[in-house]
Amino acid sequence: MLPEVRPATFRRSVAEHQAAVRTLLAGLPDALGTQTVPLAAALGRTLASDLTAPRPLPPFANSQMDGYAVRAADLSTGPVPWATLPVAPPIPAGTAAPPLPPGHAAPIMTGAMLPAGADTVVPIEAADPPQFPAFVGGDAPFRDHTTVTLPASFAAGTYVRPAGSDLPAGATALAAGTRLGAAQLGLAAALGLAALPVRRRPRALVLSTGDEVAAPGTELAPGQIHDANTTLLTASLAEAGWDTATAGICADNAAAFEAALADALAPDPDVTDLVLTSGGISQGAYEVVRQALAGRGIAFGSVAMQPGGPQGAGLLALPGTAPVPLLAFPGNPVSSFVSFEVFLRPVLCELLGVPPRPLVQAPLAVALDKPPGKLQVRRGILEDGRFTPLGGPGSHLLHALAHATALALLPPGPGHLDPGTDVPVLTMGDPQ
Amino acid sequence: MLPEVRPATFRRSVAEHQAAVRTLLAGLPDALGTQTVPLAAALGRTLASDLTAPRPLPPFANSQMDGYAVRAADLSTGPVPWATLPVAPPIPAGTAAPPLPPGHAAPIMTGAMLPAGADTVVPIEAADPPQFPAFVGGDAPFRDHTTVTLPASFAAGTYVRPAGSDLPAGATALAAGTRLGAAQLGLAAALGLAALPVRRRPRALVLSTGDEVAAPGTELAPGQIHDANTTLLTASLAEAGWDTATAGICADNAAAFEAALADALAPDPDVTDLVLTSGGISQGAYEVVRQALAGRGIAFGSVAMQPGGPQGAGLLALPGTAPVPLLAFPGNPVSSFVSFEVFLRPVLCELLGVPPRPLVQAPLAVALDKPPGKLQVRRGILEDGRFTPLGGPGSHLLHALAHATALALLPPGPGHLDPGTDVPVLTMGDPQ
Repeated sequence: MLPEVRPATFRRSVAEHQAAVRTLLAGLPDALGTQTVPLAAALGRTLASDLTAPRPLPPFANSQMDGYAVRAADLSTGPVPWATLPVAPPIPAGTAAPPLPPGHAAPIMTGAMLPAGADTVVPIEAADPPQFPAFVGGDAPFRDHTTVTLPASFAAGTYVRPAGSDLPAGATALAAGTRLGAAQLGLAAALGLAALPVRRRPRALVLSTGDEVAAPGTELAPGQIHDANTTLLTASLAEAGWDTATAGICADNAAAFEAALADALAPDPDVTDLVLTSGGISQGAYEVVRQALAGRGIAFGSVAMQPGGPQGAGLLALPGTAPVPLLAFPGNPVSSFVSFEVFLRPVLCELLGVPPRPLVQAPLAVALDKPPGKLQVRRGILEDGRFTPLGGPGSHLLHALAHATALALLPPGPGHLDPGTDVPVLTMGDPQ
Repeated sequence: MLPEVRPATFRRSVAEHQAAVRTLLAGLPDALGTQTVPLAAALGRTLASDLTAPRPLPPFANSQMDGYAVRAADLSTGPVPWATLPVAPPIPAGTAAPPLPPGHAAPIMTGAMLPAGADTVVPIEAADPPQFPAFVGGDAPFRDHTTVTLPASFAAGTYVRPAGSDLPAGATALAAGTRLGAAQLGLAAALGLAALPVRRRPRALVLSTGDEVAAPGTELAPGQIHDANTTLLTASLAEAGWDTATAGICADNAAAFEAALADALAPDPDVTDLVLTSGGISQGAYEVVRQALAGRGIAFGSVAMQPGGPQGAGLLALPGTAPVPLLAFPGNPVSSFVSFEVFLRPVLCELLGVPPRPLVQAPLAVALDKPPGKLQVRRGILEDGRFTPLGGPGSHLLHALAHATALALLPPGPGHLDPGTDVPVLTMGDPQ
């Protein structure tokens, strides 16, 4: 017999459901805690605590140019605006520079330590002659010229990078919550740090439901389709920095679904930060997720959005498992994808310090009709700054979705939008 | 003694060096070849060949709504704009639907196969009564109503998703070169594919040079600094989809550098697609990379850019190793980062189908001075649509770089730019 369909427990606007998801997941950053990983494993991770500079950057005053280290005062001692100084032994990078003898000029390479006494670097191209003398050491250390003539026009401090001028010791180099990209990891390396404290990667359990759904790579029985949602949602979570586990496809049977869920959560209850289901939550007769979970802490209802209207959310309380936030998305693949983009990704970005998808305003290239009073998410492309839909509004149009680079968020309100109407558009990058 | 510095072999504009890098790496896509990986490992990879749909999407005509499957002609047979039809057994999703008896209406759920004979779905909310009867089977299969009254206003085809309406069998689902994100992988899953042909990930060997450079995590000798470039460049390559190997830090000795390079390339000469060095290529006296490689197929010279002026590029020909493209970047960390962003990333994006960094035009928030005739890359942020620099132009300012979200490309030409001048800006996302 047809099982009883429980009534919806909420009717929400998109903003209301976004807020409910944010509240449900608010504890996520704290739950992740801290782990220390080598720099090479920290790319894309989130810094767990403020990073304090253990030493100044640069660690010592050094030369910004290949040239001569001098005292600026030695350049303007005579009646002419230049000075001819004896050349001291050169200062290679990577060595402790000996003090500069008074009245001398020492060849210095970019990045080399400024010798004590020097306060200025005159670039080699300003010197006469504009080449370094060959250094052979001994009593007559230079093979060619032993003096150099330098202009007096360089003020003290020119082409010197003082110690700590990029960052003083003890300053905050990076703030907790910073997402670690190449530049941030490069800074940590320059500070001498070989490992960083980062947040644990969050972990989600993803389940698809439905008797009609078969795993990719398997043959279809009549009436079946291949499961796109497990792939769509695990890939979307991975792009957002999550680890994922799957519990396969659960048949349209509430008891079997609940058992599969409990099994998947039982071995490691405290490392699942989120359960994400797809399918089984709308007004149909075979709504396994609603039937299994409505009494388990999950509220089901509808959001004024298309696709992705049916939604479920709550703190899952199954016997024998720790409570875990659960979001239940509808089963049509595009509905599931759009639910992720509208309800989950923005909240994850906000909570975990991940850059959100850029949101722009763009005019419609064509007229669009939509259900009045609902936010409709249309898939398409931005071309010449205008949004052009790919395919219709149908939530089964995965081919069109796979070629879309933008999601137009047609606002609730009127059901007809003229060409040229400005609408918010999330840009997703170019799949080509 | 100071070794001889070989003269520069080129002076190039930024565009000329970009073109030289593109030519050097043009064979990369072919060199990568094809490998087949499971869907879960294909995220972020590049499709190696056109993907043809092995079956139509959807694979069979199905219902877009929960409702009644009918023949549209059965709804308008009488004098009134509605029809009362006997209810046929329901059609769950995931089963082969039996043919619809003439003049009947069959309860059907979203996604379920449309039965033979039906051409239209009337949504449940348009039916009277607007609920499905409880199906108990047997001779009197329905517990409550056995007929349903449906409006005649639904044209044939309404709320039906025809087979192949998203994608017909044999059509190109995704083109070779497509970057595989969540939506593209979801499409492949929906087509029943459990694995995809993708390009091998390209692989780079990264080497830092300099006696003054020490690995992060080690103590500094006087005059030494920690190596940021290995981390900066391996992380930048990883973000662009590359695998990387490192050969540590090579001292300022041409023979040792060449030996380290040959060692790193020898074991697996054909899996290194690119060698990336940093340091040792400018006009100083200790320029190990120039000294070692100028006779090995690599041209060194200067590009009209700051930072990142000294550059080297060519096809490295070392005895006993296969020729491999090599780029030599300057040693200052910001120079190295900027060289990657200006010369390497755009070419890799173009060759490998990876989305490039977005380039926008933005006005300067403040006046900026720069060397005339050179493209200067300034690090900063976009705030209220205007570019504000962080830190000065110095190529050692890693802390400022790590807080930058935008790179302004101040064009060659005049040395002074007024506030409000529009300049091209690469946006790098938000590190916070």
